[in-house]
Amino acid sequence: VHLQVLGMGQEWEGGVMAEGLGGGQKINLLREELKHHNHNPNLVVLFSDSYDVVFTGGAEELLQKYQKLKARVVFGAETSCWPDPSLTDLYPRVSYGYRFLNSGGFMGDAATLYDLVSLNGPVPPASDDQLYYSKIFVDQKLREKFGIKLDSQCKIFQNLNHNSADVSLKFKSGDTRLVNTVFQTRPVVIHGNGPSKVLLTSLSNYLAKSWTMDEGCLSCAEGKKDIFNIDDSELPVVMVAVFVETGTPFLEEALQKIARLDYPKTRMHLFLHSQVPKHGALLSNWTKAATKAGYLSVTHVTHDDKLKEWHARARAVTECLAVACDALFSVDGDVHLDNPDTLKLLLHHNRPILGAIMTRLGRAWSTFWGAVTHDGFYARSTDYMEIVNGNRRGIWAVPYISGVYLIQKSVLEDEELRPNYIHNLFDADIAMATNYRAKDVLMYAVNLEHYGHLVDNALYPVDKLHPDLWHVAMNREDWEARYLHPDYYKALNLSTLNELPCPDVYWFPVFSERFCTDLIETMEDYGEWSGGKNTDERISGGYENVPTVDIHMTQIGFQQEALWILKEYIKPLAEKVYLGYTSDARADLIFVVRYRPTEQSFLRPHHDSSTYTINVGLNRPGIDYEGGGARFIRYNCSVVDTRMGWALMHPGRLTHYHEGLQTTKGTRYILVAFIDN
Amino acid sequence: VHLQVLGMGQEWEGGVMAEGLGGGQKINLLREELKHHNHNPNLVVLFSDSYDVVFTGGAEELLQKYQKLKARVVFGAETSCWPDPSLTDLYPRVSYGYRFLNSGGFMGDAATLYDLVSLNGPVPPASDDQLYYSKIFVDQKLREKFGIKLDSQCKIFQNLNHNSADVSLKFKSGDTRLVNTVFQTRPVVIHGNGPSKVLLTSLSNYLAKSWTMDEGCLSCAEGKKDIFNIDDSELPVVMVAVFVETGTPFLEEALQKIARLDYPKTRMHLFLHSQVPKHGALLSNWTKAATKAGYLSVTHVTHDDKLKEWHARARAVTECLAVACDALFSVDGDVHLDNPDTLKLLLHHNRPILGAIMTRLGRAWSTFWGAVTHDGFYARSTDYMEIVNGNRRGIWAVPYISGVYLIQKSVLEDEELRPNYIHNLFDADIAMATNYRAKDVLMYAVNLEHYGHLVDNALYPVDKLHPDLWHVAMNREDWEARYLHPDYYKALNLSTLNELPCPDVYWFPVFSERFCTDLIETMEDYGEWSGGKNTDERISGGYENVPTVDIHMTQIGFQQEALWILKEYIKPLAEKVYLGYTSDARADLIFVVRYRPTEQSFLRPHHDSSTYTINVGLNRPGIDYEGGGARFIRYNCSVVDTRMGWALMHPGRLTHYHEGLQTTKGTRYILVAFIDN
Repeated sequence: VHLQVLGMGQEWEGGVMAEGLGGGQKINLLREELKHHNHNPNLVVLFSDSYDVVFTGGAEELLQKYQKLKARVVFGAETSCWPDPSLTDLYPRVSYGYRFLNSGGFMGDAATLYDLVSLNGPVPPASDDQLYYSKIFVDQKLREKFGIKLDSQCKIFQNLNHNSADVSLKFKSGDTRLVNTVFQTRPVVIHGNGPSKVLLTSLSNYLAKSWTMDEGCLSCAEGKKDIFNIDDSELPVVMVAVFVETGTPFLEEALQKIARLDYPKTRMHLFLHSQVPKHGALLSNWTKAATKAGYLSVTHVTHDDKLKEWHARARAVTECLAVACDALFSVDGDVHLDNPDTLKLLLHHNRPILGAIMTRLGRAWSTFWGAVTHDGFYARSTDYMEIVNGNRRGIWAVPYISGVYLIQKSVLEDEELRPNYIHNLFDADIAMATNYRAKDVLMYAVNLEHYGHLVDNALYPVDKLHPDLWHVAMNREDWEARYLHPDYYKALNLSTLNELPCPDVYWFPVFSERFCTDLIETMEDYGEWSGGKNTDERISGGYENVPTVDIHMTQIGFQQEALWILKEYIKPLAEKVYLGYTSDARADLIFVVRYRPTEQSFLRPHHDSSTYTINVGLNRPGIDYEGGGARFIRYNCSVVDTRMGWALMHPGRLTHYHEGLQTTKGTRYILVAFIDN
Repeated sequence: VHLQVLGMGQEWEGGVMAEGLGGGQKINLLREELKHHNHNPNLVVLFSDSYDVVFTGGAEELLQKYQKLKARVVFGAETSCWPDPSLTDLYPRVSYGYRFLNSGGFMGDAATLYDLVSLNGPVPPASDDQLYYSKIFVDQKLREKFGIKLDSQCKIFQNLNHNSADVSLKFKSGDTRLVNTVFQTRPVVIHGNGPSKVLLTSLSNYLAKSWTMDEGCLSCAEGKKDIFNIDDSELPVVMVAVFVETGTPFLEEALQKIARLDYPKTRMHLFLHSQVPKHGALLSNWTKAATKAGYLSVTHVTHDDKLKEWHARARAVTECLAVACDALFSVDGDVHLDNPDTLKLLLHHNRPILGAIMTRLGRAWSTFWGAVTHDGFYARSTDYMEIVNGNRRGIWAVPYISGVYLIQKSVLEDEELRPNYIHNLFDADIAMATNYRAKDVLMYAVNLEHYGHLVDNALYPVDKLHPDLWHVAMNREDWEARYLHPDYYKALNLSTLNELPCPDVYWFPVFSERFCTDLIETMEDYGEWSGGKNTDERISGGYENVPTVDIHMTQIGFQQEALWILKEYIKPLAEKVYLGYTSDARADLIFVVRYRPTEQSFLRPHHDSSTYTINVGLNRPGIDYEGGGARFIRYNCSVVDTRMGWALMHPGRLTHYHEGLQTTKGTRYILVAFIDN
């Protein structure tokens, strides 16, 4: 292929194509060029637009297909009659194929093409080129004179606009090709005409050997920067900008992961913005620690500064430029950078605007979109789940990124390119992406490695003292990391022999110490301890036979979460040790009991209203209290020195008549659930 | 007291008092007697009827009270104006007391009384004596002439008719006196005038030192016969007449107790009448055995003879006379002669007609009545419960006896006195008592010793193969004697250590071998064994997860009885061994399972739908079957060689995952109940 680029460096006088007519200048440019070739009888010329076209095949394929079409000139076809719909009825009928001419790509012998563009001499540069060729085509005499045919079945040219449903990627060994599934053709010249440019961007992630099934992302290797083998002092200076714009579970751990990034503090500035009073103390402490940790600078814009998100994000850009950063690393509060190399990896992949792909665990919610609706919101691309699930890895040109991304200095410095977080009243992330798409600026998102995960910050109960306790189902893995006992899964393992302090009484590590203290603090903060009287309006019937000083989970709004905990963590233990038993994990009563010598200090012998019961020690014997424990009377067997976060599990009725031993000093807290009553 | 009996041996010409007027003969007799005394100025005479009067005090008390009344003549009083109500208005008003004269008893000086009865010379014998005296009394002149007063407040004379509510027995040390509680007087002469004779009979059991609180039955010693210290050959010849007139539970035991009476068979004839086909085989076998046992004779009138009860009872009397018996001992099928000396004791107490008092256990239903309604049915006397409960012991003249009684030859021989079982369409027992009362023949009932008890034959389900199984609640003690394991109560005793073949699995002797065989026979007779399939229309939901070949108690109509058994016999055992547990003894599923090699021979591991389960072996390992048993998998502990009538009791869920071991030979039956599901 002999490639001749026309018009490069010349001023464009062809109008604003996105707004209407134009492109006449292209005819003039082509005519000037063909003057040098119109006497070469063996030359076949393919004219093509450039910035919205991808070639997926070479000269041989093009010539073969051209010859098979038996025409002197072949134009690409489309399904709308543009720019002059009044020509519609003049077009020949097409029984099976696109009917109308598109002038973005055509092919013919040099002489005929020269005649074609020379028919009326030079045209006004702002006149419409497609209208020019269309009028020739609909004139039967001229059409026959020049021997023009339309590539109605997309053997060579695929114009995407209005026809996205006709095309599909076919992954074959060694190459990925676009197929027109209506005509069963494999077009070579793929044209993102009109608004189909987002689709073309998406397709271009694969086409032209960018990504193949055999070798994965071939284009990813392009432009990589060495980051891992250079001195700290040579590393780019990065502004890490953290945005906590809403109540966010497990923020503490998210911040720890930022602090633990494998990147020298001496090459990082820190910018933090938060609008959430609930997180005020945590963030202040964190920035204090960050200041000591040696960042180049630490800026904390608190909720007291009343700076809105849009402006805060823009301010991070400004601050970055002010300190002459090499890149801006934007991280939202719901992002957990589990991989401490994430920053280095993004720098290494070296794209102007590059997001790290991560998801809410086990869900499709991620930091990028593969497609957008016509009004700029989320749409699922055909490859979205493959990318999210990590089945396809690469660096993807995408219409939207959010949450965690790196923007290079070159982008920031260009006033036209730097991120603009304002577009109508859109959220900042939607606005930035919309603005970039409007400028045809490509945003990339990478999933070549694992970087981390998102937490789900929906329904975060900021009115609770420790709201994260409530996110056991919403953010299971983060909850487990903080609140489950480190040995829980070991205890659950079938090969582990569990402790059996009394007959049929088991002892399991279930909750972390943090769980215990957070729960006690929650209960004491709530403070409505029952009087330990028989009359109890909280239970159905209003009468408690064996009353304790307690607070029910229903009172603090934790009943559903506690039931989830029973189902997910207690039921499997019960079913492990009580062979053949299937637990419903039902419980009407889940509660925290407080024993102290000056209040209720013991519990008389009783049965529980349960098939089995768990009884979790919430604080430390010998330190927080003395005495206490459970005695199983029929076996004359006591469990004392109950362990923080460990659950005693025992049959509730019939065999395990039991009593609560006296707490002689301090305050003892236990969590109790009557299961399968 | 100088007692002069008038008219003894003379023909009565004074009319039939019970039918209306009469008694004039008494005036003539008194006048003739007073002729010998009317000149004795110191003589006070008390005239009294005799056969319906009881004296409860002596001369001194009578004279004192007479003098206090300050009258020359004192008549007893009553509340009806009889026999001529037209005299009512002529009677003086009485502010507080009975208004009208009764001539059954009066008192006066001999001269005045002579004048009184001589006023008009001899009277017609059949004229009415009470009318005679009444007319004198209502004539003010004559009343004053003779100085007549009425004993209106019953200081001396108590006429009982119409006034039964005014009198009450007062038990004082050494004597029992009648008190008129309206006037707070203690009358001496107690007169059962008119229909009040039944009340008088009842009162006479106590009055005149018949029965005192200190010494009990003083009259009982009268007329005793030596029975216990004489040779067998001198013992009276007794016709034992047994009547089985309705379906009767525990008849087998009742007959055994008759056979075991401590009385020589050589002094007994046996007469048996039954109208119940259900009992046919049992009774035939019993009479066959009796024939071999050496009774003087054995007569069995079966239901095939179609002899009605009334005639059968009469025939027993005839047979008794035919063989020259000394006494007839009538015993109904519901009578259990627990005391083998009963017959001897009745002979020893030696009353013409004497019933043995016994009750349905724990209930007031007994073999006698203390009172009757005016139409001849049961009424409760004030002393009924005291006698039934054995707090008052004696030989009681009563208006009705039934069930078990002895009638002496002297009574049987007298055509007027021998029992007559026919009165209108009354039942035989009611008829006999009614007829005796009409003749003023006293029937006695004795409770000086314990003789036995009655079974309750109401709701006896003769359609069942073994109806007695159903009478667990109706005849608890008899049911226990036959169907409860002899060691059950020992096992229940707190000091007994129960067998514990596996952890928390107990083993109790609960049912007798007879229970087991009767239950198996009932099930096999019913025969509708389930197919051991998951689909089971008998249970709610229609699906059984762990099916067996079984028959539910609901199918044979035994569910309520089985629940009673659980409540009365199983619940106490469970609450003994499972300390602190209170069982509801609820069970939806109680059933008998059949295991056999050619059918279902084992049961896969499962939990029960119960808090605890009982599993009762119903037949004999090693004899009726081989293999079988229960294995508790979590404890790797099996119970084999399960014992007939013994219940395994184990927790149903959670800890006691279990399986039914394979029955390798024969057929194994178990009774299972899922309790407190």
